[in-house]
Amino acid sequence: MRIGILTGGGDCPGLNAVIRASVIKGITAYKDELIGFTDGWKGMLEGTSVTLDVERCRDILPMGGTIIGSSRTNPFSHQDGPGRVAATFAARDLDAVIAIGGEDTLGVAARLADSVGLQVVGVPKTIDNDIAGTEVTFGFNTAVQTATDAIDRLRTTAESHHRVIVCEVMGRNAGWIAIHSGIAGGAAEILVPEEPFDIGEICERIERRHSRGLFSSVIVIAEGAVPLENDDDVASADHGASRRGSGEPAATDQFGHERLGGISNFLAEQIELRTGIESRVTILGHVQRGGTPTAFDRVLATRFGVEAIEACHDGDFKTMVALQAGKIVRLPIATALSAPKTADLSLIHDVAAAFLG
Amino acid sequence: MRIGILTGGGDCPGLNAVIRASVIKGITAYKDELIGFTDGWKGMLEGTSVTLDVERCRDILPMGGTIIGSSRTNPFSHQDGPGRVAATFAARDLDAVIAIGGEDTLGVAARLADSVGLQVVGVPKTIDNDIAGTEVTFGFNTAVQTATDAIDRLRTTAESHHRVIVCEVMGRNAGWIAIHSGIAGGAAEILVPEEPFDIGEICERIERRHSRGLFSSVIVIAEGAVPLENDDDVASADHGASRRGSGEPAATDQFGHERLGGISNFLAEQIELRTGIESRVTILGHVQRGGTPTAFDRVLATRFGVEAIEACHDGDFKTMVALQAGKIVRLPIATALSAPKTADLSLIHDVAAAFLG
Amino acid sequence: MRIGILTGGGDCPGLNAVIRASVIKGITAYKDELIGFTDGWKGMLEGTSVTLDVERCRDILPMGGTIIGSSRTNPFSHQDGPGRVAATFAARDLDAVIAIGGEDTLGVAARLADSVGLQVVGVPKTIDNDIAGTEVTFGFNTAVQTATDAIDRLRTTAESHHRVIVCEVMGRNAGWIAIHSGIAGGAAEILVPEEPFDIGEICERIERRHSRGLFSSVIVIAEGAVPLENDDDVASADHGASRRGSGEPAATDQFGHERLGGISNFLAEQIELRTGIESRVTILGHVQRGGTPTAFDRVLATRFGVEAIEACHDGDFKTMVALQAGKIVRLPIATALSAPKTADLSLIHDVAAAFLG
Amino acid sequence: MRIGILTGGGDCPGLNAVIRASVIKGITAYKDELIGFTDGWKGMLEGTSVTLDVERCRDILPMGGTIIGSSRTNPFSHQDGPGRVAATFAARDLDAVIAIGGEDTLGVAARLADSVGLQVVGVPKTIDNDIAGTEVTFGFNTAVQTATDAIDRLRTTAESHHRVIVCEVMGRNAGWIAIHSGIAGGAAEILVPEEPFDIGEICERIERRHSRGLFSSVIVIAEGAVPLENDDDVASADHGASRRGSGEPAATDQFGHERLGGISNFLAEQIELRTGIESRVTILGHVQRGGTPTAFDRVLATRFGVEAIEACHDGDFKTMVALQAGKIVRLPIATALSAPKTADLSLIHDVAAAFLG
Repeated sequence: MRIGILTGGGDCPGLNAVIRASVIKGITAYKDELIGFTDGWKGMLEGTSVTLDVERCRDILPMGGTIIGSSRTNPFSHQDGPGRVAATFAARDLDAVIAIGGEDTLGVAARLADSVGLQVVGVPKTIDNDIAGTEVTFGFNTAVQTATDAIDRLRTTAESHHRVIVCEVMGRNAGWIAIHSGIAGGAAEILVPEEPFDIGEICERIERRHSRGLFSSVIVIAEGAVPLENDDDVASADHGASRRGSGEPAATDQFGHERLGGISNFLAEQIELRTGIESRVTILGHVQRGGTPTAFDRVLATRFGVEAIEACHDGDFKTMVALQAGKIVRLPIATALSAPKTADLSLIHDVAAAFLG
Repeated sequence: MRIGILTGGGDCPGLNAVIRASVIKGITAYKDELIGFTDGWKGMLEGTSVTLDVERCRDILPMGGTIIGSSRTNPFSHQDGPGRVAATFAARDLDAVIAIGGEDTLGVAARLADSVGLQVVGVPKTIDNDIAGTEVTFGFNTAVQTATDAIDRLRTTAESHHRVIVCEVMGRNAGWIAIHSGIAGGAAEILVPEEPFDIGEICERIERRHSRGLFSSVIVIAEGAVPLENDDDVASADHGASRRGSGEPAATDQFGHERLGGISNFLAEQIELRTGIESRVTILGHVQRGGTPTAFDRVLATRFGVEAIEACHDGDFKTMVALQAGKIVRLPIATALSAPKTADLSLIHDVAAAFLG
Repeated sequence: MRIGILTGGGDCPGLNAVIRASVIKGITAYKDELIGFTDGWKGMLEGTSVTLDVERCRDILPMGGTIIGSSRTNPFSHQDGPGRVAATFAARDLDAVIAIGGEDTLGVAARLADSVGLQVVGVPKTIDNDIAGTEVTFGFNTAVQTATDAIDRLRTTAESHHRVIVCEVMGRNAGWIAIHSGIAGGAAEILVPEEPFDIGEICERIERRHSRGLFSSVIVIAEGAVPLENDDDVASADHGASRRGSGEPAATDQFGHERLGGISNFLAEQIELRTGIESRVTILGHVQRGGTPTAFDRVLATRFGVEAIEACHDGDFKTMVALQAGKIVRLPIATALSAPKTADLSLIHDVAAAFLG
Repeated sequence: MRIGILTGGGDCPGLNAVIRASVIKGITAYKDELIGFTDGWKGMLEGTSVTLDVERCRDILPMGGTIIGSSRTNPFSHQDGPGRVAATFAARDLDAVIAIGGEDTLGVAARLADSVGLQVVGVPKTIDNDIAGTEVTFGFNTAVQTATDAIDRLRTTAESHHRVIVCEVMGRNAGWIAIHSGIAGGAAEILVPEEPFDIGEICERIERRHSRGLFSSVIVIAEGAVPLENDDDVASADHGASRRGSGEPAATDQFGHERLGGISNFLAEQIELRTGIESRVTILGHVQRGGTPTAFDRVLATRFGVEAIEACHDGDFKTMVALQAGKIVRLPIATALSAPKTADLSLIHDVAAAFLG
């Protein structure tokens, strides 16, 4: 078979591992030819591609990022976009396309399958772990580990100076990274988008901690967390937005820059104002996206890449691969496009609560 | 409730996270009193213990090892051992014991429940991931990451010198660590106890790799892997042993020292003899057991520790906690004592095979 | 001897290693008694202290932060501060004080030696490496490694999205961290306080890179770097300030919060505006201060701690320990209080320039 | 100029950073042409080479190993070897050769300069840090960090099981790695080739530790350390060898395999025999050579690579680059060929002794 591969949306540790697995599996097991379309759907729209062979995929397993580039280009926003994608598919004599991406990329894949009959297999990808259908996505484990390493570092400096440190992690709509890194890092508070937080209660708990002899606190907050009361324009600025991936522009300035950190700075100011305890902010930002994937993510991404090739050869299109109970399965892409998988709040209420009290 | 905690068998990253979670959850949610028995069942046999309170558990989340010590002491090997354990339970006015350990420790727990009615909840622990009933055990993720980091390092030195490097990892009866670190590290061969290996075939594949321009190979081998042919006393020396945990004495010298590395040195010698390619051995050994747990293991261990306390308060004894499809469940301890969970060989045949061909 | 120890100023990886070394060396070699004054000079001002013995110093070698706390309290800003310090010295029957800190802490030490005859030995400490007299200070190596790890991660995400990423590191007055992490991370630009940067030239070089097929750039900028032209209030806001340690308030808001990132956000905006290339900002912040010290810093801090005890026993007061050409030496504290050690710009012009052209 | 580059001897983190720095500096500053001879002197002997340009050097800064391969081939052991090297130099129209290697590689360079007038600049390289003339060599910092990370891991498992763990690190003739990683890891004993150790005294100190309530010990031993008494064939087997690099064959088996670990296993057995305390061995081996260099080594290697190009353009041949008091200098290659730089034992006697008592 001749199979195209593309990566769309924000990058994520493990993309190269998926590419490598699909390429080597395809070539070794089926003598497939693999073509990498550059910068996501843009590559199929414009017909720009690179050849992917075994040599090209050497040494990329431990590399972060994606060797074929990524973008947020959506063919449905372009004049005759779907038709141009279909034309590329035909002109290149393709039998299938493997689309690696998040909700947006997979949504485009499903619509292209419907509208122009694109033979596509999806591989779900999100740092945030909020795609329905799969227990976990690659990249999430790496992001949590990177955040936990940072929290370990912040804890010691918080303790030395008896400070509150607010550490903002990715997660605009889902608190998975905040919850896992918060539990792993022994955070005093974990604040997530799924549940508005009460600044008054947080301050009370911090003061109670201090009265018990714990003179420092690390608060892990997802970038999409919001306060209960709407008493502040910083807080309200983040509301009402449609669903976006991590790190993508919420409130933006004139250059389209995301303005991360608004909620964290607001929170730190409120805590310092109300409790008198020195508070500082650290926003982890893009370091969570980059770098070498953990062993867990390399294995998961490799399994996804192999299964995607199998799905192509089974003609099992408009599906995506997923992890369920330790097994790789295939599901309709539509599964991923239903409601986002919000975080398991019992992890805060039953597990983390024990440590936050 | 008054609850005892003990850790038995080989140590494992995450033990302290379980202890901390049980202690803080018990105290915070139920005003429990927690007592740590030192060095596994030995502590209950001899009545030696330490008080576990919130202060003692500060800062131990990121620490490897176990603050209450561990040993392989088995009460059933001691004069009136079960009776002495029961006496300690009564004398300390305990309501429950949380036993954190592998097959041996949990087996003792189940037998004590039967013989002297010990009210015990088990928490499964093994680096090797070969306990039935739970999808994964804490410590495994850390061991795989440590092994993968080492393989990443070994690869560059293998490439510089055009060598074969044989990297021996833990796993006397199960190849989980070898398979996961082998896939994550991009190994050329993965050899596991579940499937005897054919040295002739390995040499052929290595020579084929070299003929294709790949002049180095990292072979990941579990310590319990054995060759197909029994043509060598090194190989056969490891056979016929009853089930043992990782790193525990197989062939031993006069001091009871484990003699690790026999199979790896044998393999490297055979490869060098048959192919003429320079071959070296690295045995990772105890570094796989130690050090700070990964974020994944900290979260899993914390969830286990919290659930163990809940099981105690539900009077749900002779059970153990386990992970299934992302949820923490309780199972009869007997589940863990059935056949060991051997590794998923499809990961070698379907996934890794693509990269080894 | 009875010796007091205190740590002042911003925390820094290796403080605990100094404390441990002084305590164990003092006790083992000389049967000294060691007293830790809490939170820097504040502890001597208020007479608050903890006993430091071998047991207390177990396990602290790999820990970031300082177990005796730190603050920026200056006795000379308090009513009869120097007198109160001298009174504590006498009341505790001390023979010497080891003061571990940066320019401020050491400056106070020297003034106290002059004004009230305090018998003090200094140990220089700064993340920023800008203390004169010593080739390098502990903490610097760890900060550079942490920054380099982050840059490694940022590079892959920059490449995937063909972006410019501006990475702000510590260094308000000196560019040591920026230069070393920039060279180690292969940065496209390194901007330091010692040399105002020309935004126009930076944009030209970035466009030249892009025209040569390099579609991403990581720019490492010290927090204290400033642009040549004063065409912007963001840029000018940081000017004119007296000397401050890293991460300390420059422009501050109503709560005294440092407003880090002003210069980086300004630079990213300018680059995006002038070149049209998507630009993002990451501010590493306090993670550079915390966490386990590198092996290099543990060894250096340990040597400093041992030598400080020797200086006490030699009666060699009003000196500080330092590293010169691989040897630990003693110098008058005044050496550290002369002009700050600015970064070696030849590292940018001769070394890094090769890679930036 | 047309400049050849080669890497000889055991590989070492930072080799690629030197190559990259020389290539990019040469091309950018002087429009040099750079040629990489493969596998050390073998490449010049046989005329095998690869072109080194900016593109080839992208992304190699963080990579361990050497992209041009290495070997121990010595032209003086080959029929008309020096003549063939000179012929290659002439045939390729070279103006200079940069030889990156240890005592052997640099020794060959100096002899070739004398015998056939080779215009050569040396860059010293050794994991072991035992080359005279330079304060430190790249690779050493990475090896020490890798060993320290392992010791951190071993400590927790030693503590959990109240064991002695003997950790063998590289260093056949010099104890630099053992001393630095031993101090950084808080080892109970540090044993080096420069000073035979007394097993009886070690056992006494360990028993004294245990009597004081410290129930575990990590002993760091260089592979070349030897016991005082010659009462054992294991110990004596390692004697009498001429100078060798780390990890190179000492006692070898029939396949020329190094037999590492003899001295460590012997020591562990003796300790267990004499004290009754369970003892285990871990031999770090080749992981110390591989993997990504630390920031420190990347900067040092980059500075060396840049300076080597400057030396070529200054016609400053038969010199090598070196680090002295923070500056890069040039010295006659002969400096490196004098007596090896043995470790600073005052670090054991004055610094570490405090912690070993």
